Amino acid sequence: MSDYVTVTFEPAGANVQVPVGTNLYEAGQRAGIEIAGSCGGQGICGECQVIIADGMVSELTSQERKLLAPALIEEGTRLACQAELLGDAVVRVPSIQEVVVRKTLTAESVRSVPLAPNVRRYDLNVPAPSIDDQRSDFRRLAEAITERSSDLTATVQCLGSLATALRAEDQQIAVTAVGSQVVDVRQASMRSPVLGVAVDIGTSTVAVYLVDMETGEHLVTAAGQNPQTQFGADVITRIQYANSHDDGLTVLRDAIVAAINRFIGQAVAEVGATPADVYEATIVGNTCMHHIFLGLEPRYLAQSPYVPVTTEAVSTSADRLGLQINPRGNVFCLPCIAGFVGADTVGVIVASELTRRDRPTLAIDIGTNGEIALWSGERLLTASCAAGPAFEGAQIHHGMRAGPGAIDEVFISGDDLAVHTIDDQPARGICGSGLFDAMAVLLELGLVDAKGHMVDGQSDGALSDIVARRVDGEANERHVVLADAEQSANGPIVLTQRDVREIQLANSAIRASTEMLLEMVGLEPDGLDEVLIAGAFGNFINPASALRIGLLPEVPEGKIAGIGNAAGAGAILTLVSQRERDYARQVTERAEHIELFRSSDFQDRFAEYMIFP
Amino acid sequence: MSDYVTVTFEPAGANVQVPVGTNLYEAGQRAGIEIAGSCGGQGICGECQVIIADGMVSELTSQERKLLAPALIEEGTRLACQAELLGDAVVRVPSIQEVVVRKTLTAESVRSVPLAPNVRRYDLNVPAPSIDDQRSDFRRLAEAITERSSDLTATVQCLGSLATALRAEDQQIAVTAVGSQVVDVRQASMRSPVLGVAVDIGTSTVAVYLVDMETGEHLVTAAGQNPQTQFGADVITRIQYANSHDDGLTVLRDAIVAAINRFIGQAVAEVGATPADVYEATIVGNTCMHHIFLGLEPRYLAQSPYVPVTTEAVSTSADRLGLQINPRGNVFCLPCIAGFVGADTVGVIVASELTRRDRPTLAIDIGTNGEIALWSGERLLTASCAAGPAFEGAQIHHGMRAGPGAIDEVFISGDDLAVHTIDDQPARGICGSGLFDAMAVLLELGLVDAKGHMVDGQSDGALSDIVARRVDGEANERHVVLADAEQSANGPIVLTQRDVREIQLANSAIRASTEMLLEMVGLEPDGLDEVLIAGAFGNFINPASALRIGLLPEVPEGKIAGIGNAAGAGAILTLVSQRERDYARQVTERAEHIELFRSSDFQDRFAEYMIFP
Repeated sequence: MSDYVTVTFEPAGANVQVPVGTNLYEAGQRAGIEIAGSCGGQGICGECQVIIADGMVSELTSQERKLLAPALIEEGTRLACQAELLGDAVVRVPSIQEVVVRKTLTAESVRSVPLAPNVRRYDLNVPAPSIDDQRSDFRRLAEAITERSSDLTATVQCLGSLATALRAEDQQIAVTAVGSQVVDVRQASMRSPVLGVAVDIGTSTVAVYLVDMETGEHLVTAAGQNPQTQFGADVITRIQYANSHDDGLTVLRDAIVAAINRFIGQAVAEVGATPADVYEATIVGNTCMHHIFLGLEPRYLAQSPYVPVTTEAVSTSADRLGLQINPRGNVFCLPCIAGFVGADTVGVIVASELTRRDRPTLAIDIGTNGEIALWSGERLLTASCAAGPAFEGAQIHHGMRAGPGAIDEVFISGDDLAVHTIDDQPARGICGSGLFDAMAVLLELGLVDAKGHMVDGQSDGALSDIVARRVDGEANERHVVLADAEQSANGPIVLTQRDVREIQLANSAIRASTEMLLEMVGLEPDGLDEVLIAGAFGNFINPASALRIGLLPEVPEGKIAGIGNAAGAGAILTLVSQRERDYARQVTERAEHIELFRSSDFQDRFAEYMIFP
Repeated sequence: MSDYVTVTFEPAGANVQVPVGTNLYEAGQRAGIEIAGSCGGQGICGECQVIIADGMVSELTSQERKLLAPALIEEGTRLACQAELLGDAVVRVPSIQEVVVRKTLTAESVRSVPLAPNVRRYDLNVPAPSIDDQRSDFRRLAEAITERSSDLTATVQCLGSLATALRAEDQQIAVTAVGSQVVDVRQASMRSPVLGVAVDIGTSTVAVYLVDMETGEHLVTAAGQNPQTQFGADVITRIQYANSHDDGLTVLRDAIVAAINRFIGQAVAEVGATPADVYEATIVGNTCMHHIFLGLEPRYLAQSPYVPVTTEAVSTSADRLGLQINPRGNVFCLPCIAGFVGADTVGVIVASELTRRDRPTLAIDIGTNGEIALWSGERLLTASCAAGPAFEGAQIHHGMRAGPGAIDEVFISGDDLAVHTIDDQPARGICGSGLFDAMAVLLELGLVDAKGHMVDGQSDGALSDIVARRVDGEANERHVVLADAEQSANGPIVLTQRDVREIQLANSAIRASTEMLLEMVGLEPDGLDEVLIAGAFGNFINPASALRIGLLPEVPEGKIAGIGNAAGAGAILTLVSQRERDYARQVTERAEHIELFRSSDFQDRFAEYMIFP
């Protein structure tokens, strides 16, 4: 008998030989199949659902019985991290785990800017040489591009194909330049699209926005899980992973590069193009994601004095990074501001034109970390706080990323609460915008008190019976049912006492930080012209909910605007406009980063805002 | 019996299996062993001498009996292109075939310039970060290099090692920058040399000059045959080779890149360094060599209107070209002027500071082609002429490159002529400087008349008996013995009637071109302040000989200066000085290239100067 078994993953068709007893999560990694999961295979998050189509695997574990609905178990669903291979098997990875390719931006609103990209296509009719015009082929090409003839260069490879390309179709050629360097030359009839990608590397989610560089039109988005999630849910655990494994950084880097390449591949396939048609990529992400993507040591980001390797914008040839676009395409990583205020925050500032505004404006980007940028009209202050990934749905009992079946709105309906799910699917969990709402509604209905204590539904006469019936369990195990079994795919979706504590901590950290910054520039909340909330919550945040839970300074509801995944929008803007790219650099130079923990006031504020309004 | 045999080449020790009947020249190519030769294996040049140490090869051919002295045949010498393998064999490739590494420049005189290279080493003590100085590692590094903090960038790889390097030895690091980009960072104790190479790709000979970039000191030179010689002796036959083989250009390019890499390897080994310590290479060569080195289509150089792919300076990362120096080191190819006036001529102009002179000066670079640059004091005119490789010793019966045993001087001694050989070795052939002298002496002694006719020693009473005895043979087979069997290694060294014709053609082409240029700027020869002759002739040219044969305009002997391999000197100057690099670019922009063949006058002049003075 062999000690090895073969497992095939559908629909990708990838297969791999692994020792008997290997769990499916690990087998998936070896087969290059990304299976969702945010607990690192500990059987906690319940996200790594797969379906056993054929073959022998180990018995259901108690964790699976707890996390999987009976209906799912019946159809053969298992948690990949729990099910161990006993023989050859065929495993289906549900499509919800796969890359989502969307035709349009959903939560990203990108302002319109004049097209002024770094990548240019020139369709040229180059004058033929003659004995009276013995200028070199390249010189004649350069002068045919009147706008930048003097500083134009070309890759050696392009020079290598230039003579033949020129003479193939009577001097008609299509030339692609990245900056002032020609990186592609071909005869006119072999012209192909000129594409670009804006990449937002979130700690949890990666999004690739495909853009037509000749029109600036956004074509499709491919998005999915950041595969580094399997090595840790947040930046700190990933840095720990890198520190504690010899090749840890390489493993993390390879994972994200492979994922981006896959997303790019799927996006270009959607429009009938190839990765080689992509000539530029702009990259945003927090400083840790930025460092790991570039292969920079992230260790010192997590140690005082929290110093990045570099905060400057990095521009480099795609092949130097293993990014599968045109090998001589350019990769532009937006600059960072500090160890915990990264290129994603710069993207938010660019997208919202924060420092171009006349009036004081506050921008808060809520992701796995919280970053705050305050523009006083004269100064740009930034700060970060360890908000935890609660508002992205992680470390929340039924938290999930925005996707079909995610509760994205919770509201009061008559005497009860009601929910809305993405695509009106049966509820599968709750995403960020739903959490803000849920917390606000629970406070409003009295299910949670100001200290964040979930009340005992039985004993508190102030609750309506309908509402009280939603509360179950004792003390720290107490929870509120948001969607009952009938409304849900895998059993009731609940918000637990522990969830409330997670939200409470994140909420307080953001609020305390915001108040500190306002004080530093001598601004009262009513001096703010606008409060912008960025983040990939599944839906634009409900301002009333944000105010109700005390997340935001006390400003009129009308001054609050959700701006969606503004970091991604910033990446798109810097892809299509050199002016916006310059703006990103200016923003970084202008930013004053504040380390809030240094202030003795911060802990006081933090304690103060642990109390809900 | 096997159809394959194994041949081992000593002293390299390389071996290869080839079919029975393969000649040693071809076997050498397959084994990666460069065997000299300029006739492409036709048994004509007699250069591919090897010694059979052991094993069975085919019988001596008639060509070998003609070209090899009996003493050589006795010791086992064969022509590699003639000897076919009949069984396993061990073959010794004589050391004269190998790379020559010299401690000093011989025929290159490099003027002294202030050291201002593109490559810089910085030994830094970078301020440590603190909670009051959270600037990134890179920013602190950049500001420690005060002179270029604002525009400094770094490769992603360097950023990747920066954090660890800084913290290994208390912030003491050694940083190497190429231009404004940091390409190497290491902890201070791991400091290594910073070297550069200037590479002169001649049609026949390649020279690599190794330079210490911290002092500007020239360390060693490694030089040897251009292995492309096996595919053709001159640029036209090499272009034909590229045109007529699918992978012709690749074969030619690979050959020269491999040779340069080998020469670099030997040069750095000589000083105890490694190729990775070399951070920049400057390259000169004629336009065809330049194109082949860069992989640019050379086809159109040889077709009217003789248009190069590019004439601009090309700067690119070493790994893009397969050059084995530091992978992120820079390769700077000097600009060219026209299809037949290349970066080598630009190097000559830079070395001689031609256009920085107040007075009109003529520079002639005599290589396999002849290039002429005339500075009028206001205009820089350039022209090329197909001089043929005669003055480099090729296509001359006993011609050879400058090396031990080459006749480098011929002079009149009493009633007779006498010769000098390099290193005072027994004569093996004649190199360029010897040819100029020989031609002058033969004219002076009356052995050759003004029309280039070698006289009959027996019938012409004007010759001394001693001299007359040197003439032998009839009509076109006639020849003059320069060194008799006693003075020589392989039998008498002669100059033939055909040799005289080759010299006569080259001589006339250069003179006619020169006169045309002078006329175009309205200069008489006596208006010239200086006449500079560049070329790798084995020795500085004797001005009297050059005047005697009519190679040069009629100027006083004192105005003529041999400047040796000035192209190589130009490559060294642009390696050590950015100012000289800029000068090379200015020269190219300033040059007016003249296609002489277009002028009907040219053919008249050419005929006129076929008559020796």
